[in-house]
Amino acid sequence: MDRDQFKTAAYSAIDDIIKYFDSVPERRVVPDIQPGYLRPLIPESPPDEPEDWATIQDDVDTKIKPGLTHWQSPNFMAYYPASVTYPSLLGEMYSATFTAPAFNWLCSPACTEMETIVMDWVAKALALPECFLSTSETHGGGVIQNSASDAIATIIVAARERRVREILLSEGLEESSPEYEDRKFDVQSKLVAIASDQTHSSGAKGALVAGTRFRSVKARLEDNMEMTGSRLREVLEKCDRDGLTPYHLTMTFGTTNCCSVDRFAEIKAVLQEKPAWQRIWVHVDAAYAGASLVADEWQYIAKDFAEGVDSFNMNMHKWLLVNFDASVLYVRNRLDLTNALDITPVYLRNPYSDMGTVIDYRNWSISLGRRFRALKIWFVMRSYGLNGMKAHIRKTIGFGDLFADLVRSRSDLLEIVTKPGFALTVFRVKNPASTGESTERVSPDAVADSVTKKVYELINSRGEIFITSTVIDGVYVIRVVSANPLAEEKYIRKAFDIVVRTSEEVLQE
Amino acid sequence: MDRDQFKTAAYSAIDDIIKYFDSVPERRVVPDIQPGYLRPLIPESPPDEPEDWATIQDDVDTKIKPGLTHWQSPNFMAYYPASVTYPSLLGEMYSATFTAPAFNWLCSPACTEMETIVMDWVAKALALPECFLSTSETHGGGVIQNSASDAIATIIVAARERRVREILLSEGLEESSPEYEDRKFDVQSKLVAIASDQTHSSGAKGALVAGTRFRSVKARLEDNMEMTGSRLREVLEKCDRDGLTPYHLTMTFGTTNCCSVDRFAEIKAVLQEKPAWQRIWVHVDAAYAGASLVADEWQYIAKDFAEGVDSFNMNMHKWLLVNFDASVLYVRNRLDLTNALDITPVYLRNPYSDMGTVIDYRNWSISLGRRFRALKIWFVMRSYGLNGMKAHIRKTIGFGDLFADLVRSRSDLLEIVTKPGFALTVFRVKNPASTGESTERVSPDAVADSVTKKVYELINSRGEIFITSTVIDGVYVIRVVSANPLAEEKYIRKAFDIVVRTSEEVLQE
Repeated sequence: MDRDQFKTAAYSAIDDIIKYFDSVPERRVVPDIQPGYLRPLIPESPPDEPEDWATIQDDVDTKIKPGLTHWQSPNFMAYYPASVTYPSLLGEMYSATFTAPAFNWLCSPACTEMETIVMDWVAKALALPECFLSTSETHGGGVIQNSASDAIATIIVAARERRVREILLSEGLEESSPEYEDRKFDVQSKLVAIASDQTHSSGAKGALVAGTRFRSVKARLEDNMEMTGSRLREVLEKCDRDGLTPYHLTMTFGTTNCCSVDRFAEIKAVLQEKPAWQRIWVHVDAAYAGASLVADEWQYIAKDFAEGVDSFNMNMHKWLLVNFDASVLYVRNRLDLTNALDITPVYLRNPYSDMGTVIDYRNWSISLGRRFRALKIWFVMRSYGLNGMKAHIRKTIGFGDLFADLVRSRSDLLEIVTKPGFALTVFRVKNPASTGESTERVSPDAVADSVTKKVYELINSRGEIFITSTVIDGVYVIRVVSANPLAEEKYIRKAFDIVVRTSEEVLQE
Repeated sequence: MDRDQFKTAAYSAIDDIIKYFDSVPERRVVPDIQPGYLRPLIPESPPDEPEDWATIQDDVDTKIKPGLTHWQSPNFMAYYPASVTYPSLLGEMYSATFTAPAFNWLCSPACTEMETIVMDWVAKALALPECFLSTSETHGGGVIQNSASDAIATIIVAARERRVREILLSEGLEESSPEYEDRKFDVQSKLVAIASDQTHSSGAKGALVAGTRFRSVKARLEDNMEMTGSRLREVLEKCDRDGLTPYHLTMTFGTTNCCSVDRFAEIKAVLQEKPAWQRIWVHVDAAYAGASLVADEWQYIAKDFAEGVDSFNMNMHKWLLVNFDASVLYVRNRLDLTNALDITPVYLRNPYSDMGTVIDYRNWSISLGRRFRALKIWFVMRSYGLNGMKAHIRKTIGFGDLFADLVRSRSDLLEIVTKPGFALTVFRVKNPASTGESTERVSPDAVADSVTKKVYELINSRGEIFITSTVIDGVYVIRVVSANPLAEEKYIRKAFDIVVRTSEEVLQE
């Protein structure tokens, strides 16, 4: 493909992409296909000779688009959103153009320096405490990771290394001695990472990757599924009794199931109770809800991270207008990362890195190579401006509030299960036998579970909207969240009508 | 940015991108800037109000491009290449458009199904053994990873879990019993991952991430830096004596320093010598040189992977025309991955996954979410055709052969250090006192080291070409590899002239 062919192809692709976004509200959100639909449509082997772009683009239209789940559809109200915007797309184009694995500064200085600058921009936009800025006295800073799973796995490995080193040095062992190595793996075998059972599965997966134990703190509906200090204390004390060493704790700002917010102040107070507990690495996973911090009215939450928090991650690619992947991870002290992950062989050395005058992001993550993802963040922040980003968050939180109000307005049929917020509503269809007075708190009910599940499955099978269900403290629930850039009030109202209509239909059977 | 603004912006970006590729041969490969160049050029905080695209694009031109290392330049001859091509760029555009974290099938079926199909295409193009196809009797298959580091860390975790489980089950322990957990971490504390000291640093980093020990097998110049069976045996026997359990071995097809190829047949024979050694997970890291397998004349190498190899990775984003990230990873038995990495909570369940009728790639990697990277591979394979890909590999291998011949033609001044191949030449400037007869094998020489280092530093400081140096078995060497899509014979000849001229200049001082 030469420059002229590319120009024609790319212009045509741009036109097609615009048409795609324009048409997405009319498309069925989840495709009506069966597993294996694509295999018969594609040759078994790659072609020997080149094919032209028109043929390829036509195949995108006829073979790929019919098999997509359209996350950009305003009728997509499942999971949490994963958005793309036009400026972000331009960022991907330039990022690919400037392809460089950018594993150290020299490898492409602009990639590294722009990442540092943009991570500071994001930290300021979220009103994160000073300690997470690259210019902070604590030697903090931010790095872009592929996903929250990667960010959390990276942090857990860093936490493991920090805790083990502390213990070994306190025992007077000398680093790189054979005794040090043996004792290292002894100590490691007793380490435990902890998180609430509402934490994203990447918490448990991170502990698994790092080769350590994992314990979860049970969250309860009576606490709105928030991790409390006292329930955490029970788990910590059990670890102590079992001779295990807690080394990492994930606190969640916006859990996956219901967007609950762990009780940061309470938890941090409990961690102060024992010297060993003070040494636990505290991470805040704000993958989804952290985006709300761009709006001034939520920034009080970030004040809790100024003390007693070692790291923080948020996925801009969920709710903050930058497409996947753009998971921002901040640490209070970058040495905690680089001490754990720096393995620098000769071929990756260069004078700037050796002098320590530059950041080499390869030592801040599991990946060595990395894409130039700072560009798309820079483009989005400039194209929207902070006010545009705030407006997007406020508008979609408003849609969530509207949906929750609509659910409340039909308390004969539906009931809210956890405190709605951050654009998410978690509810269930009521057991018809219990209609009448709403109680303060929802409790498990097999009939409600069964009806809610039927309603959920029927709605998704019809493909007008796409929602998710989950089980919260034994209660089967439906989750609705509409927060992508194409979200509009009329779609929220339509979704509510579908929920009501389908619930009535199921109850009549 | 509305559709019309995007159309204007994107057309303008496309024109600018074409201009960039056209101008890249004339640009200084490594920018002439000092660390911190960018910070004063960018505001300290993001803007409150939106900025228009023209301003942003202008900043890309004046602030970003001057700080890039141009990996696409035909004068870039450092590390190994990291390429981008026009069809790959179109793939990135569509991938961003269809943004979906695609962690399971339902999440966007086309993403998953296209990945499976395209990974089979790539396996066939490389003539990998049948066992790595998704349709194989061994339940093999391929998955796209971000980078070789991620692929190797993932494989090491899977290998760790497989070995520990085998040992524990053989001891009669019951999974999920408390004894099982305690014993698991006991066993794990003795595990050792092994690789040659020429293996990419991601081998050691993967073992570190997985929380296990690591031992390297020393490679020697007398063996052309290839890992031999006998040197591996020494390390395995030492592990046995120390009461350690080897569980993972990386064999390298194209080492980072000098593109040497480990002695697969010899190594596999050694692993057959003891039952415990037969249980070691054998991984082939072919990150760079694996791309050569598209050309028929190299495919005999892949025959060695049909037996005794558990997994294989290759980075298409190095030498195979697809831009970063496109690291393809194959396993002989996908259950080895999913047994290790599947942590499925309720909110990620769906009927198709529960029935096992679909692939959920989240269980094949550390990341949960993932981009639609199969598209760019599909576009590139179709736009080039297999014959186009073969031609690219052959042409650039030819440039490497030419460069090596040129070095040999100046045996008064330069000497080849390791066997050249796969487009790479590794050489040094001779100690002038030793000029005259070339010996069969190069040995350490402080004068040659010092002269070679000076030549290397002078060449890179002038910015006409960009090359790397390294130390091989105590010998300081220069590496030259020119294998990106814009590579041409005239640039190879120019690079050689620069090497000769600079060597003569340094020697005259």
